[in-house]
Amino acid sequence: MADADCILCRVASGEVAVPLVADTPRIVGVLNTLEPFSRGHCVFFARKHAMNLLEMEEGDLAELLIAVRDVAAKIGAENYNLLQNNGSLAGQTVFHAHMHLIPKWSEDEGLVYRREPRHELVHGEVGERVIISKRT
Amino acid sequence: MADADCILCRVASGEVAVPLVADTPRIVGVLNTLEPFSRGHCVFFARKHAMNLLEMEEGDLAELLIAVRDVAAKIGAENYNLLQNNGSLAGQTVFHAHMHLIPKWSEDEGLVYRREPRHELVHGEVGERVIISKRT
Repeated sequence: MADADCILCRVASGEVAVPLVADTPRIVGVLNTLEPFSRGHCVFFARKHAMNLLEMEEGDLAELLIAVRDVAAKIGAENYNLLQNNGSLAGQTVFHAHMHLIPKWSEDEGLVYRREPRHELVHGEVGERVIISKRT
Repeated sequence: MADADCILCRVASGEVAVPLVADTPRIVGVLNTLEPFSRGHCVFFARKHAMNLLEMEEGDLAELLIAVRDVAAKIGAENYNLLQNNGSLAGQTVFHAHMHLIPKWSEDEGLVYRREPRHELVHGEVGERVIISKRT
């Protein structure tokens, strides 16, 4: 159901005009003109309002990456990141689940993130929650 | 086709033993024990070798986020990021396309990225390549 206060629902309905890059019965893609990290930074989301990944319909999840792929092919960048943020601490600021496609044109233009892993980290109880087998 | 030198192909075939979190005919998910950003950091990929997003089969793209969603539900973190890197400059180090699921437990544990957008940025010619319509 559309949320009258949700900016992405208003984009999906056509009430808010933005440059579209994908437009299917399930998925909308827009050029990020408000807060871009790089030229060609796009945002993809389901027409149906869902706050985060867990709330999205399976049919929407199944089509989202295909829409992203099609636009990534058009951009033709050799380097690009997909980023999806769930929850404020993770950087989510618009609470209609969406996936960023961010071309990486240079060290400074695109997604900049800390690449050093935490080798000392122990997955512990969190790991036990998700492990289904120690090997295939 | 499997690549004998590809670590993720060797994981998918069972040659390399790792803790599995997803295991379907198309998709494999593993706990990232080598270079984790946070407890519960997992990596998902198609069994079929594909270097990047553009090379992935549509059937694999259609199932990838569903596998990620299922594991995110099990982890139960309120905050988490999905990240997929294509190309060296974008941070790709293993050239078998994969999607990271990274729980964000604290400011320091999880994906840390620069959140300031570039308000001065002009999409220009890159934008023109992908825009299909100025409004819905």
